[in-house]
Amino acid sequence: MVSTPALIGLDWGSTSLRAWLIASDGTVLEERKADKGASTLSGHEAFAAAFDDVSGAWRAAHAGVPVLACGMVGSAHGWLDVPYARCPAGSDALAAGLRRPDGGQDNGPYIVPGVLFDDTSLPPDVMRGEETQVVGALHLHDTLRASSCVVMPGTHSKWAQICAGRIVRFATHMTGELYAVLRQHSVLGRLMPDDVPVDPDAFVQGVDAARDHGELGLPHQMFAARSLGVTGRLPHEMLADYLSGLLIGHELRAGLQWRAMAGLGAQPLALVGAPDLCARYQVALHRFQRPADLVLDNTAPAGLLALAHAAGLLPLET
Amino acid sequence: MVSTPALIGLDWGSTSLRAWLIASDGTVLEERKADKGASTLSGHEAFAAAFDDVSGAWRAAHAGVPVLACGMVGSAHGWLDVPYARCPAGSDALAAGLRRPDGGQDNGPYIVPGVLFDDTSLPPDVMRGEETQVVGALHLHDTLRASSCVVMPGTHSKWAQICAGRIVRFATHMTGELYAVLRQHSVLGRLMPDDVPVDPDAFVQGVDAARDHGELGLPHQMFAARSLGVTGRLPHEMLADYLSGLLIGHELRAGLQWRAMAGLGAQPLALVGAPDLCARYQVALHRFQRPADLVLDNTAPAGLLALAHAAGLLPLET
Repeated sequence: MVSTPALIGLDWGSTSLRAWLIASDGTVLEERKADKGASTLSGHEAFAAAFDDVSGAWRAAHAGVPVLACGMVGSAHGWLDVPYARCPAGSDALAAGLRRPDGGQDNGPYIVPGVLFDDTSLPPDVMRGEETQVVGALHLHDTLRASSCVVMPGTHSKWAQICAGRIVRFATHMTGELYAVLRQHSVLGRLMPDDVPVDPDAFVQGVDAARDHGELGLPHQMFAARSLGVTGRLPHEMLADYLSGLLIGHELRAGLQWRAMAGLGAQPLALVGAPDLCARYQVALHRFQRPADLVLDNTAPAGLLALAHAAGLLPLET
Repeated sequence: MVSTPALIGLDWGSTSLRAWLIASDGTVLEERKADKGASTLSGHEAFAAAFDDVSGAWRAAHAGVPVLACGMVGSAHGWLDVPYARCPAGSDALAAGLRRPDGGQDNGPYIVPGVLFDDTSLPPDVMRGEETQVVGALHLHDTLRASSCVVMPGTHSKWAQICAGRIVRFATHMTGELYAVLRQHSVLGRLMPDDVPVDPDAFVQGVDAARDHGELGLPHQMFAARSLGVTGRLPHEMLADYLSGLLIGHELRAGLQWRAMAGLGAQPLALVGAPDLCARYQVALHRFQRPADLVLDNTAPAGLLALAHAAGLLPLET
């Protein structure tokens, strides 16, 4: 049996746009990518044009197939400012929050709302896009539904606590962006040569420094990525991976404690994201003696499909 | 009595060069500044030319007056790579480590060595220039000599523990540089308007967030400088000071704990540096209920004078 397309799904982030033609069983039939991130576009016409570029041919060939998009496309600086769903938020609330941009396009995308965590005693936290990864992970792995922690490494890593199928709270860690700006724009980057192979030993040294001496503070510990080089203790080729390990180690140190504070240290832990990055996080989690129970590649297509079902845009699963 | 110049002193850092004509009692008779930081120069000729620009007239007018320079001018990428003095380091060791660049200039500067802290269980730490600030602070305030903590806020803040007149250990915090790169190059800066007045309330909110919830981790907490703005909880004009408070708060949280771990929490605490910045740190220290006992402006001239004496380059004080 040849799978017929059931859904066109878009993960439309700040810097990139990925689109999938998805079968009713979740199989990705085709994939397209474009460097038309939401932060590079401004105004309805620009978004509509990028949307046509990436999905126009599919929409023409598969009339009537619904289109869902998640990510920064739904932010104040995106195509349409879609109000956040508030924690606790599950697929029903997210489906109820879908919004389409005005403009008369019959096949304009339904945009998934982001999620707002608003604790009275702490600053609020926000996500756009990762909620769909969570929905996909729970759809694919029922063991995560009752109680779990889903960690999505990236430019802005998200740690989401799941209870009864809903995101009950979450925390953003700017680990990836911090690494990028320190590498490219701080004194630390000056000693780091480009294009050197990954050094697993240096990475582990950085993770361990965060684990064992993190109380000395990240603004202090990151200076070691210079002082170790200046004093010849670490070859310059190893400094970037040391810094990467240190930053990821600080994320894990804080994230695992955040999880333990909620009394949920024994619940399953899942890593969701790009395989290379998840592998680094899994190495680091092993150093904390708390490896992830599941490591999943991109779950956005599964999440978009589940949300299309929850919104009644697709026939009931049979 | 008109003071006669006893010393020409230079604080020659990465990005700037300050020079003073100093009397035997430590009075600064004249000051000159140049944007000839060590990181902007390369090679003996460039340093020698900048040196002549800033101090040539003084040297011609006051033949025989010694010249001392401290800072990154003594680094591997400076005029002369002057070997570090190792902790514990006091003015005798620093004076013994003075080196002059080759090149036949009779009046070339003696360059003060930086200091290396090399604990076997931690990455090494390094300073160049701040050791002279410490020497000056101890020279001006005898109460700091026996046991104290000297904090020098800046691009790379230094916390130095003093025992019996020597730097026994120290820690660098990249607080100022971290603020600059996050403001200029990260997503956090995008919401922050330029040229807004300082907001003391926002600063204190950031300090308190670090003090009360720092265990959530800086890579997480810094995201609040975005999420508070995106959700309208904090006006965009306040976000930069919130971030500044958060970063300084994390430095204090770690620094005060580092101090307490050494069992030295009761020793005097001195802030040394630019008055505006020291004032911010003092506000933050008050939030930690540990205000500085002394707040000192630039102590480099006093330090250079003390080192010239220790090196026997000046007549004994009478």
